[in-house]
Amino acid sequence: MKEGIWFIQKYTDNATFQYLVKEIYFSGKTKYQKVDIVQVFLFGKSLFLDDKIQSAEVDEFVYHEALVHPAMIAHPNPEKILIIGGGEGATLREVLKHTTVKKAIMVDIDEELVKLCAKHMPEWSNGAFEDSRTEVIFDDARKFIENTDQKFDVIISDLTEPLEQGPSIYLFTREFYKKIYNILNENGVLVVQSGSADPYYNCFFASVYKTLEEIFPLVKPYWTFIFSFNLPWGFNLALKQNKKSDINDEEFKRRIDESKFGKLKFYNLELDKGLFSLPNYLKETLSKGKISTDSKPFVWEA
Amino acid sequence: MKEGIWFIQKYTDNATFQYLVKEIYFSGKTKYQKVDIVQVFLFGKSLFLDDKIQSAEVDEFVYHEALVHPAMIAHPNPEKILIIGGGEGATLREVLKHTTVKKAIMVDIDEELVKLCAKHMPEWSNGAFEDSRTEVIFDDARKFIENTDQKFDVIISDLTEPLEQGPSIYLFTREFYKKIYNILNENGVLVVQSGSADPYYNCFFASVYKTLEEIFPLVKPYWTFIFSFNLPWGFNLALKQNKKSDINDEEFKRRIDESKFGKLKFYNLELDKGLFSLPNYLKETLSKGKISTDSKPFVWEA
Amino acid sequence: MKEGIWFIQKYTDNATFQYLVKEIYFSGKTKYQKVDIVQVFLFGKSLFLDDKIQSAEVDEFVYHEALVHPAMIAHPNPEKILIIGGGEGATLREVLKHTTVKKAIMVDIDEELVKLCAKHMPEWSNGAFEDSRTEVIFDDARKFIENTDQKFDVIISDLTEPLEQGPSIYLFTREFYKKIYNILNENGVLVVQSGSADPYYNCFFASVYKTLEEIFPLVKPYWTFIFSFNLPWGFNLALKQNKKSDINDEEFKRRIDESKFGKLKFYNLELDKGLFSLPNYLKETLSKGKISTDSKPFVWEA
Amino acid sequence: MKEGIWFIQKYTDNATFQYLVKEIYFSGKTKYQKVDIVQVFLFGKSLFLDDKIQSAEVDEFVYHEALVHPAMIAHPNPEKILIIGGGEGATLREVLKHTTVKKAIMVDIDEELVKLCAKHMPEWSNGAFEDSRTEVIFDDARKFIENTDQKFDVIISDLTEPLEQGPSIYLFTREFYKKIYNILNENGVLVVQSGSADPYYNCFFASVYKTLEEIFPLVKPYWTFIFSFNLPWGFNLALKQNKKSDINDEEFKRRIDESKFGKLKFYNLELDKGLFSLPNYLKETLSKGKISTDSKPFVWEA
Repeated sequence: MKEGIWFIQKYTDNATFQYLVKEIYFSGKTKYQKVDIVQVFLFGKSLFLDDKIQSAEVDEFVYHEALVHPAMIAHPNPEKILIIGGGEGATLREVLKHTTVKKAIMVDIDEELVKLCAKHMPEWSNGAFEDSRTEVIFDDARKFIENTDQKFDVIISDLTEPLEQGPSIYLFTREFYKKIYNILNENGVLVVQSGSADPYYNCFFASVYKTLEEIFPLVKPYWTFIFSFNLPWGFNLALKQNKKSDINDEEFKRRIDESKFGKLKFYNLELDKGLFSLPNYLKETLSKGKISTDSKPFVWEA
Repeated sequence: MKEGIWFIQKYTDNATFQYLVKEIYFSGKTKYQKVDIVQVFLFGKSLFLDDKIQSAEVDEFVYHEALVHPAMIAHPNPEKILIIGGGEGATLREVLKHTTVKKAIMVDIDEELVKLCAKHMPEWSNGAFEDSRTEVIFDDARKFIENTDQKFDVIISDLTEPLEQGPSIYLFTREFYKKIYNILNENGVLVVQSGSADPYYNCFFASVYKTLEEIFPLVKPYWTFIFSFNLPWGFNLALKQNKKSDINDEEFKRRIDESKFGKLKFYNLELDKGLFSLPNYLKETLSKGKISTDSKPFVWEA
Repeated sequence: MKEGIWFIQKYTDNATFQYLVKEIYFSGKTKYQKVDIVQVFLFGKSLFLDDKIQSAEVDEFVYHEALVHPAMIAHPNPEKILIIGGGEGATLREVLKHTTVKKAIMVDIDEELVKLCAKHMPEWSNGAFEDSRTEVIFDDARKFIENTDQKFDVIISDLTEPLEQGPSIYLFTREFYKKIYNILNENGVLVVQSGSADPYYNCFFASVYKTLEEIFPLVKPYWTFIFSFNLPWGFNLALKQNKKSDINDEEFKRRIDESKFGKLKFYNLELDKGLFSLPNYLKETLSKGKISTDSKPFVWEA
Repeated sequence: MKEGIWFIQKYTDNATFQYLVKEIYFSGKTKYQKVDIVQVFLFGKSLFLDDKIQSAEVDEFVYHEALVHPAMIAHPNPEKILIIGGGEGATLREVLKHTTVKKAIMVDIDEELVKLCAKHMPEWSNGAFEDSRTEVIFDDARKFIENTDQKFDVIISDLTEPLEQGPSIYLFTREFYKKIYNILNENGVLVVQSGSADPYYNCFFASVYKTLEEIFPLVKPYWTFIFSFNLPWGFNLALKQNKKSDINDEEFKRRIDESKFGKLKFYNLELDKGLFSLPNYLKETLSKGKISTDSKPFVWEA
């Protein structure tokens, strides 16, 4: 092990991950959260919010492709997209790879963070903020959704976990998902990043699953592994129709334009099927998730 | 973070994982390796060899089910099984869940380790060493395979990575796989645990893949995620026939007896398909694996 | 840095010391405290109580010689000695090096700890528990002192810091020191180990100093450095007479018998003078110490 | 323990000190060394060179007062002073507190470092670089000393340890000290910071001591404790005359002007005597120091 400047991330009080730092681009606070943009040797350039790694050069593509594409291909013709959260701009970048998209609105509460990411991590958005289809709104996502009169084909929830007194605690409740349901078009699809899918700490994944099931006729949990999180990771796809549309390779190629925002490094249609096949332990725990409501919201505790 | 006794594992010189220790069962050396059997808060009881975690209470079932069952169901009627390595006895346990099995031979070079595991981690073997179908041989696997006149239906390679001057360096070469091929029955199947499948350090996974392809007509790489390794993990399935047999739920239920050695907590047939669907980055790197030979063996460097 | 088992000691929430462990002799709990007796590479065999290092092979002689000898030579003829605390037996060992001693009573509340030390760290007591002048009493020191009708020449307070809800919180108060005063003979001397003397965290040292000054006519603070504590360390010498007796080399040699319990590796008469010369910062903070009383005891917070 | 950015310092391969970082002022490299100027919670603003702490806000006064004042008062009338090393400017600051000083020359090889310190740590020099008596020369100290035709009353060696291939390896040899001797005036005094004085790693302290004894008629080793180094620290005072001059409080007050560069927070005349009283273990090891020569220089290995 080498000496010098390290980033230490607590997994729990009983476990830490320690990363040697190569360069520090930014270390400070916005109005909403602690932000560190640093290059660590193991993962390359990395974003930490409140001391938790959010995305890293080595595999941000895994997280963002896994979050975006299953939802996009589950819709027959996704034209209007809403992203809530997603400050780095990489979720937006993946959305814009779809040639069907005419409008992509990103609502993030933390303007300073979005600007820090655009400045220090431009590889993440890779031009997406400048795309003519993009609109970025700095606002509370719940307020935006309660007040908008627009409708969307795909809504992507790319938020941090609902921590006690954190900004996202009421963005995972039944009441909030009801409002999302209402602003989705007929074939509308919602996808929610849902936290760890490891054998111990998967209660958030299960809570999102069960809460979505209260509102949507079809909810399909899926998972993959995020190297830089040191964890398998869960997502939930919720559909307004009681079926998930299928897509073939030809159609997939027609829809995706890799020329502008880069090639897919993770996702493919064969893998899409794999993502939705779950191990027994997850099937069992997902069935026992706790429903999150405005009066009794789910709170994440590490 | 709490103070006291911790287990610190280096991932590379630039990254460490630190685990608070609850209890120490054994800490010492065998003739072949450093052995620590400790309970860490995050993972429960855990085995470390040469300071690298090998299996942990929380998810040893993931690794061992992922290693054993895809190979077992790829054979139409696996009766005679050979395990090389697998000191904890959990690979043996999964093998013995298959009612078709008439004989399971485990060859491990490290008798002290096997006995330490049997004593301090009996939950892993869970009676497998006492099963009448079991035979345990303490010997060098290469020597055993070169001298045996027995033939096997399924061979499971459950070895540590080929470290410089480590005991397993010649157990991953083309010449060794040729010998394995020769002691497999006509429908024979080999499975090899093949190390990390993360975006950076997957060259071992790729080397095993390409080396097996030199000998076997069909090699199918697959992956899953091992929480306690903090990594996605690769395996290679190699078949003597140029097709992978299929199996249905009914047949699967008929073959597996969960009464004696415990229920499957990870594996199911739907997941089996998922394990074999790979992301683009792995497809690309697997195709570039370096062939390991006796004269130029692949050596793992972290 | 090497991987494996480490002992991590928190200095504060903002700083830790980490020591690679070579061997673990005991790790568990007594009725009163968490006890770890381990060999760390940096310091050799070491005793940790409640995760704080208490004494280490490399330099236990520094602490114990610095604690015992200044008090012993401050008395013209120390025959009857009382040690409160001192579980390892090394304080007793240093006391018994003085040929004037006829009786040494050690009162420690934690019988299990004393026995663990005697078993796993016999080098510390080095036969002192078997000396005919020794009497060990397992009891609360305050209770013993309030009830005894014996009188002593030298009393040595070798206790852990007064932590909230710890066992020693009422063993540093004005009321307790009054009782000590009463059981000291006419030329009696008390010495109190008084914690860190570093530029930041020296309030305990100052509190003991000012509290003793309420009772004793002469209090002389002194300091040295304890390598294995990573800290300069404070002691307070309190005298029933308003003068500190002096001693010459000849008398010192006559009094000390190095044959039985080993040579002095730290203490000498020239150094004794050095120990009592304090830097300006300590002089200033000692003068501002907070008096500890039964109704408002001083509590140590790291 | 808290998560986030930490500075990890290796003490040896078997021990580390870890400090939570509050702010990073500079992190980079000069032509000669790695430089980190960071604020850590435990010590305040701190300078690390090649990942070793050099001085910290909490107690730089201890190190610099202990280095400078014993030498200055050992000279009857120190007018002309040479500092070799001392990049932070705090050694210079302490020198300039002496009203006898007419000229203070500081020779440091690392111009970038001196400028980084002046910019980010102005509290250290506290105006000393702007004093009319100061001259700063950026050059190799050995080259300067071999070529100068000036003579000095006091020379202060404030250099980093002689690491293999480090810049200071030939600044601790007999040949170098001979040259120093030659440019000292008749009553000249040399002081050398001499590294750790702990019970294990004191061979550098001993080597400087024995090497100086080859050249100077009187060498007086002394020690104190540096909190931020987690170590007791050694210094050697070498005198061209075979006696150390004495000084009384009145004379001391007359010589020191505390108005311009701040009060003494550590040093006083009573303490001066204490610094020179050594424990038995140091007396013993100092007598066995290895002489460093140009052909066989002493090299520090942690």
